[in-house]
Amino acid sequence: MAGVAEGHVIGVDLGGTKLLAGAVGADLAVVHRTNRPVYGLDQQELVQMIADAVEEICTAVDAPIAAVGFGIPCTFDLRTGIAVQAAHLPFRDIAFGDVMAERLALPVVVDNDANCAVLCEARAGAGRGASEVVMLTLGTGIGGGLVLRGEVYRGWIGAGAEMGHMVVDADGRPCVGNCPNRGCLESVASGSALVREASLAVARRPDTPLGHALEAGRELTGPMITELANEGDPVARGAIEVVGRALGVGLANLANIFNPQILVIGGGVSAAGELLLEPAREVMLERALAPNKDAVRVVTAEFGAEAGMIGAALLAREAAAGRDCGVRVSLPGRAAA
Amino acid sequence: MAGVAEGHVIGVDLGGTKLLAGAVGADLAVVHRTNRPVYGLDQQELVQMIADAVEEICTAVDAPIAAVGFGIPCTFDLRTGIAVQAAHLPFRDIAFGDVMAERLALPVVVDNDANCAVLCEARAGAGRGASEVVMLTLGTGIGGGLVLRGEVYRGWIGAGAEMGHMVVDADGRPCVGNCPNRGCLESVASGSALVREASLAVARRPDTPLGHALEAGRELTGPMITELANEGDPVARGAIEVVGRALGVGLANLANIFNPQILVIGGGVSAAGELLLEPAREVMLERALAPNKDAVRVVTAEFGAEAGMIGAALLAREAAAGRDCGVRVSLPGRAAA
Repeated sequence: MAGVAEGHVIGVDLGGTKLLAGAVGADLAVVHRTNRPVYGLDQQELVQMIADAVEEICTAVDAPIAAVGFGIPCTFDLRTGIAVQAAHLPFRDIAFGDVMAERLALPVVVDNDANCAVLCEARAGAGRGASEVVMLTLGTGIGGGLVLRGEVYRGWIGAGAEMGHMVVDADGRPCVGNCPNRGCLESVASGSALVREASLAVARRPDTPLGHALEAGRELTGPMITELANEGDPVARGAIEVVGRALGVGLANLANIFNPQILVIGGGVSAAGELLLEPAREVMLERALAPNKDAVRVVTAEFGAEAGMIGAALLAREAAAGRDCGVRVSLPGRAAA
Repeated sequence: MAGVAEGHVIGVDLGGTKLLAGAVGADLAVVHRTNRPVYGLDQQELVQMIADAVEEICTAVDAPIAAVGFGIPCTFDLRTGIAVQAAHLPFRDIAFGDVMAERLALPVVVDNDANCAVLCEARAGAGRGASEVVMLTLGTGIGGGLVLRGEVYRGWIGAGAEMGHMVVDADGRPCVGNCPNRGCLESVASGSALVREASLAVARRPDTPLGHALEAGRELTGPMITELANEGDPVARGAIEVVGRALGVGLANLANIFNPQILVIGGGVSAAGELLLEPAREVMLERALAPNKDAVRVVTAEFGAEAGMIGAALLAREAAAGRDCGVRVSLPGRAAA
């Protein structure tokens, strides 16, 4: 990809409910952000909305854009560049990178959203300096990202690191969206699971701040549960603890499987901080083997909800500089490089 | 480790019930084997028995031995060479390599037994030519081995790849031996689980070949269940199918997490072959994501029950040739190299 100059790049993180995009400078500072709801759009509308968001940023940034990086919650086949399956989005078998490169007339790289997040955290965030970093992003679903021996690990054809779809309860509830599985970690430790837990718990204890907030018409969401938990609401705290303990089972598995130096928890739900991580660590320490359980640190993402966006931008920067970024680069006006 | 000549090496595979050791030539042919029961020995007796077995082989082989490789079912701390925790053996916090190097007056390398098995299968067996190989060894417990990007993956300090202790049923039965966990894959898909399933099933159906065999005084073991299943006994077949389906949940997790090219099933239980693998594949295909589930092949180990022993020998050969074999080399008469 010689010929693409370095400069500003755009990172786009597409989640199950919202898109977050920003222009990112060489110092990782975000110079322009945009944020759009995703829910309810079909594939064509989604592609249109994403293109609009990127064009809005291109217009706002008074500098050339070298490349655009996308983190999207899909499994990929890197051999073809196809986004094969998404649990929470209407994407199926779409050559997303090629479509976007044509649409935007810019070089485009696409990776799984949680792969982008772990790249950001391992290079510049909570996993800085560690060679073995495992990350879970807790949002609508649960994404997984791996940095092994210092490099993002994507598996044979690029579809690995789906730790959110690791079964922790074989006879458990059906997983959400397009995942055919049941009892996945995602079904018990995601933002959706948090809302479900709080909803069940508040029905039993309506005379609580959370109960009163719902009565007053507030919508039950992850951020709202975290806000009330921070104010001491017992139902909200209890729901976060239930999800934290379920998360701990997943962390025990990851400690046993990867013996990582650091486990990073990102995504919207990680805003609950120690209310979530304390019970998760407790369960991990009860269940995992030695020395794995004692070797690992469990921390929240330093870049918080922006890790995916900034990681996508880092990937775009690698591609723009002509370095092997581990994923396929789509160029406008011709077949992918 | 310059100065250690190439030549014959000895591979030792230590399981929860038996030790298998052999001298292995450069062509991977095993020139002398020995096989000893392990059950019921304490740590000191076990070390003595292992040293005796290796010395028996040294005496039988009319050639110099360059090094001895051990595969043992423990978690390791490669920083210190300490075998930290074993689920099925009385090893805890023992510098096993240093102890054996002194005892045998030979260079010694030690690795997890399933790491040895996957090394053997990836270099010379079912995973030949594949860069991403995930292996489970189904015996008394379940060992896990990973070859990622062509190299054995051991995690940060060497204690990774414990996929047998991946929880698949969070509220399931307590795991066996020294594992503090519950609902581990090992508790539902190991040889021990197979014996338990068959034992429960035959109590309900005593008028079957398996029931009659037990009545005639035969002991209920994994090999005996496989033998009767091959002869068509419905209880034995049913038990293998139950274990195969439980294994399939684990394989779905591994397909989602690693997106491997090949999943290799080894250890004694893999002698059940397609009776085990067919239901396992079926469940994996029902549960795993695309394209992961379609990309992976699930096969039995080509080296069967000898994969661990030969892999330990391969490791010893690497060390003897002075190449970095990824684990610590213990030399007699001085601190580890």
